[in-house]
Amino acid sequence: MQGKNYLMIPGPTAVPPSVLEAISRPMFGHRTEEFAAMYKRIVEKLQVVFQTKNDIFVLTQTGTGGMETAIANTVSPGDKVLALVTGNFGERFAKLARIYGGEVDELKFEWGSCVDVKQVEEKLSANRYKVVLATQNETSTGVLNDIEAIGKLVAKTPALLLVDGVSGVGGIEIKVDQWNVDILVTASQKAMMLPPGLAMVSVSPKAWAVIDKNTSPRFYFSLPACKGKIDSWNTPYTPGVSLYVGLDAALEIMMNEGMDNVYARHKLLAEATRAAARALGLKLLAEDAWASPVVTGIYSPEGMGADDIRKIAKKEFAVTFAGGQGKLKGKAFRIAHMGFADRMDVIIAIGALEMALKKAGHAMELGTGLKAAQEVLMGGSK
Amino acid sequence: MQGKNYLMIPGPTAVPPSVLEAISRPMFGHRTEEFAAMYKRIVEKLQVVFQTKNDIFVLTQTGTGGMETAIANTVSPGDKVLALVTGNFGERFAKLARIYGGEVDELKFEWGSCVDVKQVEEKLSANRYKVVLATQNETSTGVLNDIEAIGKLVAKTPALLLVDGVSGVGGIEIKVDQWNVDILVTASQKAMMLPPGLAMVSVSPKAWAVIDKNTSPRFYFSLPACKGKIDSWNTPYTPGVSLYVGLDAALEIMMNEGMDNVYARHKLLAEATRAAARALGLKLLAEDAWASPVVTGIYSPEGMGADDIRKIAKKEFAVTFAGGQGKLKGKAFRIAHMGFADRMDVIIAIGALEMALKKAGHAMELGTGLKAAQEVLMGGSK
Repeated sequence: MQGKNYLMIPGPTAVPPSVLEAISRPMFGHRTEEFAAMYKRIVEKLQVVFQTKNDIFVLTQTGTGGMETAIANTVSPGDKVLALVTGNFGERFAKLARIYGGEVDELKFEWGSCVDVKQVEEKLSANRYKVVLATQNETSTGVLNDIEAIGKLVAKTPALLLVDGVSGVGGIEIKVDQWNVDILVTASQKAMMLPPGLAMVSVSPKAWAVIDKNTSPRFYFSLPACKGKIDSWNTPYTPGVSLYVGLDAALEIMMNEGMDNVYARHKLLAEATRAAARALGLKLLAEDAWASPVVTGIYSPEGMGADDIRKIAKKEFAVTFAGGQGKLKGKAFRIAHMGFADRMDVIIAIGALEMALKKAGHAMELGTGLKAAQEVLMGGSK
Repeated sequence: MQGKNYLMIPGPTAVPPSVLEAISRPMFGHRTEEFAAMYKRIVEKLQVVFQTKNDIFVLTQTGTGGMETAIANTVSPGDKVLALVTGNFGERFAKLARIYGGEVDELKFEWGSCVDVKQVEEKLSANRYKVVLATQNETSTGVLNDIEAIGKLVAKTPALLLVDGVSGVGGIEIKVDQWNVDILVTASQKAMMLPPGLAMVSVSPKAWAVIDKNTSPRFYFSLPACKGKIDSWNTPYTPGVSLYVGLDAALEIMMNEGMDNVYARHKLLAEATRAAARALGLKLLAEDAWASPVVTGIYSPEGMGADDIRKIAKKEFAVTFAGGQGKLKGKAFRIAHMGFADRMDVIIAIGALEMALKKAGHAMELGTGLKAAQEVLMGGSK
């Protein structure tokens, strides 16, 4: 019925009521003490999420803008870049580096697989890169890459490690300082539980040295411009005030839950979703060892279009799954369980998936996937 | 997690986002053309829901206030009243009549059963009543009474038929004119998809004749006072403006869906819930023949406290079921599927119920109830 929809896509994701309320508050000016106090609160909470003492900036742009900010400030024409590509968003990061004149080595991995750290080691020892690009959570396939291992290797070289954490940060643990992440980019509309419109970027001291000398054109994306304003907890250009208010509220929810609980919750939801898919005889895109805690990619049954299943789920049960991207279009679908997601969301997703599969003609017994999901969900502690 | 809750109680029920938005709009005065135009729109839409050309008033009070309005305007000390009692809310209606000096004959039926129309016929032929009180949907047991049959009998007598439609109207069809309902009372917080705070009352010409001569004290509850203001589409005292704005929006949703679809949806949800309960080996309070389309009463398994099951469902899975009322306290629980409820709500309710039952030690296989619910839900057309 009208207004009753279940959004199971990897962004934008559902926004909690208290965050919607925060976003709806009356406007106030950004050159004020009120704004500065809020920006300070936000950055302090983001430092907990990012596990860093590095500078953090909140930028009024979506995730791709955040990725371009990272590139525009570190890649100058002719610079050597190593891009670790495990899917659509890895490709986007590489493309951005090329647009800014980077000479990009793409290390490509099978869609559904993660970065093979050994190959990264070989590349790094045979070449001298200025920048290495990695994706924490590859949204297009539901694959989690080992940023810790990659960071350990890159830290031994002069190269900077730029990490696209757009779909992972806030749902999957990341230790920026300990894992040597020089620039981490994330965005508001995924595990951070906000509407799209904000990117968040952390910058290490090692990165600042490169950024300050960078020659690529940058104005709106200028990190030095951000740095020039952060001492007074302000922004160089007008910030998206309401979304900042929402971010403050969303981070408060995360702090109240505790980040360890947030990460455990996402893992539990992923396990339950994967158990259900297996019980229904469906093939998963990613192996358990590198499965994403925030989004699960599933192949549609042999001879059945993934988008047909999605259409039935949406039209009949108001449940929206994401389609396959790039080479997986029509062959796979994705169920997100990120941000404002809890156990009953898996029940909703699998309940609708089963009915859609049955309607599409998949031979299976209703309730089979649900039972498998319930068994996992019951094991998790509240 | 914080803010992620599933309310499965028979009021207050979930409020659709567009209604929450409407309620949150800036305040405006009620002695204005803007208010009058809105009140007119509301009444015209309520006439569709009530299936009546009778006067309809929106009152700023909850359901019990609406019931008291019906009584205070029709029952004077010494008046003979027949109360048809099938549960807690039937008892409340009878109590109100006694408070206003009525000499009340209570025709009581077993909790879980509906009104036996034959007994009503006998009572009516042996006595001369001024008022007959009936409950359309007995919320405490999940029982639907046959208002059409009762109305047919009462219409042959000088008595007025007062119907408590608080939990039913908007989810269960009622034909005020055709079924001879003299005063119908409903409220905002159940199938009408609003927060609590408004009652809606229709008054037949036959009722006005009694109301005008009534001697009981009434001021805030005065229907003649309402009548004196309705020609200018206004209210005698300050109305709850924001809830009226919400009511306008909620009725718009209902008009868009179409009342036949609204009623079919509620029936489907009830059928699915009942099928699931049966598949889980649970005993239902009401027989199929008189089962409520908007709330399902279920006995807890032998030796298992209903409130223990409810506590687990709430604490572990954030799903709130209603408890048993009166003599059913601790022995039964209730699952509402009224108002802003659709198919996935049944999946949520049964999914959580199964896990709660299992945790409480009920011998059953997970997914059994869900499968039964899915089979019914798949049959319903979108």
